[in-house]
Amino acid sequence: MKAARPRVYVSRRFHFSAAHRVYNPAWSDEKNAEVFGLCSHPAGHGHNYELEVVIAGTPDPDTGYVMDIARLRDLVEGKVIRVLDHRNLNTDVPFLSGQIPSSENLIVALWNQIQPLLPEGVELVELRLWETPRNCFVYYGETS
Amino acid sequence: MKAARPRVYVSRRFHFSAAHRVYNPAWSDEKNAEVFGLCSHPAGHGHNYELEVVIAGTPDPDTGYVMDIARLRDLVEGKVIRVLDHRNLNTDVPFLSGQIPSSENLIVALWNQIQPLLPEGVELVELRLWETPRNCFVYYGETS
Amino acid sequence: MKAARPRVYVSRRFHFSAAHRVYNPAWSDEKNAEVFGLCSHPAGHGHNYELEVVIAGTPDPDTGYVMDIARLRDLVEGKVIRVLDHRNLNTDVPFLSGQIPSSENLIVALWNQIQPLLPEGVELVELRLWETPRNCFVYYGETS
Amino acid sequence: MKAARPRVYVSRRFHFSAAHRVYNPAWSDEKNAEVFGLCSHPAGHGHNYELEVVIAGTPDPDTGYVMDIARLRDLVEGKVIRVLDHRNLNTDVPFLSGQIPSSENLIVALWNQIQPLLPEGVELVELRLWETPRNCFVYYGETS
Amino acid sequence: MKAARPRVYVSRRFHFSAAHRVYNPAWSDEKNAEVFGLCSHPAGHGHNYELEVVIAGTPDPDTGYVMDIARLRDLVEGKVIRVLDHRNLNTDVPFLSGQIPSSENLIVALWNQIQPLLPEGVELVELRLWETPRNCFVYYGETS
Amino acid sequence: MKAARPRVYVSRRFHFSAAHRVYNPAWSDEKNAEVFGLCSHPAGHGHNYELEVVIAGTPDPDTGYVMDIARLRDLVEGKVIRVLDHRNLNTDVPFLSGQIPSSENLIVALWNQIQPLLPEGVELVELRLWETPRNCFVYYGETS
Repeated sequence: MKAARPRVYVSRRFHFSAAHRVYNPAWSDEKNAEVFGLCSHPAGHGHNYELEVVIAGTPDPDTGYVMDIARLRDLVEGKVIRVLDHRNLNTDVPFLSGQIPSSENLIVALWNQIQPLLPEGVELVELRLWETPRNCFVYYGETS
Repeated sequence: MKAARPRVYVSRRFHFSAAHRVYNPAWSDEKNAEVFGLCSHPAGHGHNYELEVVIAGTPDPDTGYVMDIARLRDLVEGKVIRVLDHRNLNTDVPFLSGQIPSSENLIVALWNQIQPLLPEGVELVELRLWETPRNCFVYYGETS
Repeated sequence: MKAARPRVYVSRRFHFSAAHRVYNPAWSDEKNAEVFGLCSHPAGHGHNYELEVVIAGTPDPDTGYVMDIARLRDLVEGKVIRVLDHRNLNTDVPFLSGQIPSSENLIVALWNQIQPLLPEGVELVELRLWETPRNCFVYYGETS
Repeated sequence: MKAARPRVYVSRRFHFSAAHRVYNPAWSDEKNAEVFGLCSHPAGHGHNYELEVVIAGTPDPDTGYVMDIARLRDLVEGKVIRVLDHRNLNTDVPFLSGQIPSSENLIVALWNQIQPLLPEGVELVELRLWETPRNCFVYYGETS
Repeated sequence: MKAARPRVYVSRRFHFSAAHRVYNPAWSDEKNAEVFGLCSHPAGHGHNYELEVVIAGTPDPDTGYVMDIARLRDLVEGKVIRVLDHRNLNTDVPFLSGQIPSSENLIVALWNQIQPLLPEGVELVELRLWETPRNCFVYYGETS
Repeated sequence: MKAARPRVYVSRRFHFSAAHRVYNPAWSDEKNAEVFGLCSHPAGHGHNYELEVVIAGTPDPDTGYVMDIARLRDLVEGKVIRVLDHRNLNTDVPFLSGQIPSSENLIVALWNQIQPLLPEGVELVELRLWETPRNCFVYYGETS
């Protein structure tokens, strides 16, 4: 009989700087300006994004770790942040190709990039993305 | 058949400065001082409140937005923050009238003010109110 | 018949500075260095920990409080923070004795220290522990 | 012959919550409203103030300290912060009596309170007062 | 004979989001990549800039203000931030035209935009520009 | 005749986690406890230190940079932060050997490590070291 073990959540925060322009290519410039306002200026603008990746699991009795947070950091930085940092989200990021780079679409795409990187027994449970210190987007992998 | 669509949470943080005095008018000054301590000084004190409003929904395929965060900002600032900012919570805010202005009561009252402002298809799921950087109050609309 | 009353979450953030060394005493220094890297340097290192304690309950109609946050502060500071602050987590803290002082193990041990301190009708629902501004650990009292 | 010794600056940050109303009692309510706007609402408003006290001196060779920062903390908290915290700056603080409680006047008054508290050989060189995270006031004891 | 009056510094922090690409148009793409690295990606990247504007003067005895901080806010937001926010610094900002949009050049250009806006008796003494939370640039109007 | 060129200050913030014990080895444990209190616990404690390195110079007309901030980051991280991070300041850091590891002594030692790393034409003008978010130490290379 296995004793119940605590389930602990571990999160690491990442940083990247990127440009984007929010617009729908199927629409005219006028309609884009009307719907998206400042966010649709043709030459784009940018942000310092902060991304928090939250995983969950039970601590390994030999290490006290759910997952070595340095390993989580290296995986996400090497495979995901490196592709986004100092880039233009409209043109430079393969996994955003063909999508409006709103933070809603970005966070769902990030989920699909990060989930396959995690080792067995470790669950991706939440992504939290700040576009500015006042605007934040959260995704738990839910659909409706 | 409709494909499952992701459910994303979007939050915006607001700021207001207000005075309050925590006391129960049914009690004597002595009993108020005994129960509420510093928070019950007769001439009041104040805080820089931070309020985070969290909504949820599915991103619109045409815009990539759950709801334009600029519209959320304008609604909450115009209808709610404007009524609280640089005011006294004991005397100046109609929707707090007759209530002890604890942060617990304030956050429940804010829920009732903000929920009717949201457009169809967008759900208010969480309010988070910081009274100081160390004291935070959260409400999900739950009762018990 | 009792009317439904709102359930509100109240949190207070605490601070302590401590040293620790993450290592498994059953292993050689080489194996510890291989598994834990920098975190296992023999003379230890340290952090400014931030701990957020989240409780939940219904506001008392007489006070507007779930629990006086000053009382929560005094209880946790007097019974828990005082034991950790400016200490070495490997050698100085009775309730961590015999455990690897990873943040995962620390947060579960903190739950067991804080839960019995709370008055009736107030529930401990979440602990949130920052080891650095980028590394955070969360525990809801769950087992799996 | 004494060797040159380094001059080091040491600062400690304090926190207090207070109410105030910015108005000139020599003016009518109309003129106050016209000049001070929101800041002059009759029932007042409030802030979480942050105060940074900066001292300078040469580290004592026996302790490595300019001044024990715990002693600086206790002096300023005991003699100054305690008088301001959870108070109304217009009515409750003796050393502000008869002054408009603007942050400019407050910071000059704080200088006069804090300077006499410091031991010999330690110089008060700067006060920094945040009224909100975006509004900051600084005083170096200069006149012009 | 006029009594000495205190000289107080007042600062306000502003926020804008912009895209830029750091490159020298006189150089080849290869040389730009070699010198500027990630910062020179052709499609640009972006930041959430924070700008702190510091002015100095003596508080007016009638108001207790060096300058009404709400007026400072409105002037700088209306004349300067509005021109930068949600724009591309390489192509959209007239006062940066013909310059490499490094933060060093941006801060000097901002000084020249903000100084003429201030009323008599109020001095611009410092600009502080954060490109990211870790990278900051400061200008006091000095030349060498 | 050379035109006057602007002098701009550039700063980069670094992070390291370390253990220390503040005590004077020439004193008894009792005297150390009396003078240093909590900071002198025999098994040590630790902090997340933040270090801000401020340099000054004139922007190069070809790059718009005083010094490429990525080069400053790599120099200071490679030569200084790497030696401090996840270490014990009493025993592991050659350039602190024989000194009480107070933050005052640490910041002066850091100045001597960082100054020789800078290229010609770039001046080290300020170091700013946070031991906790509330305790900060500043050094400008001054002696008295």
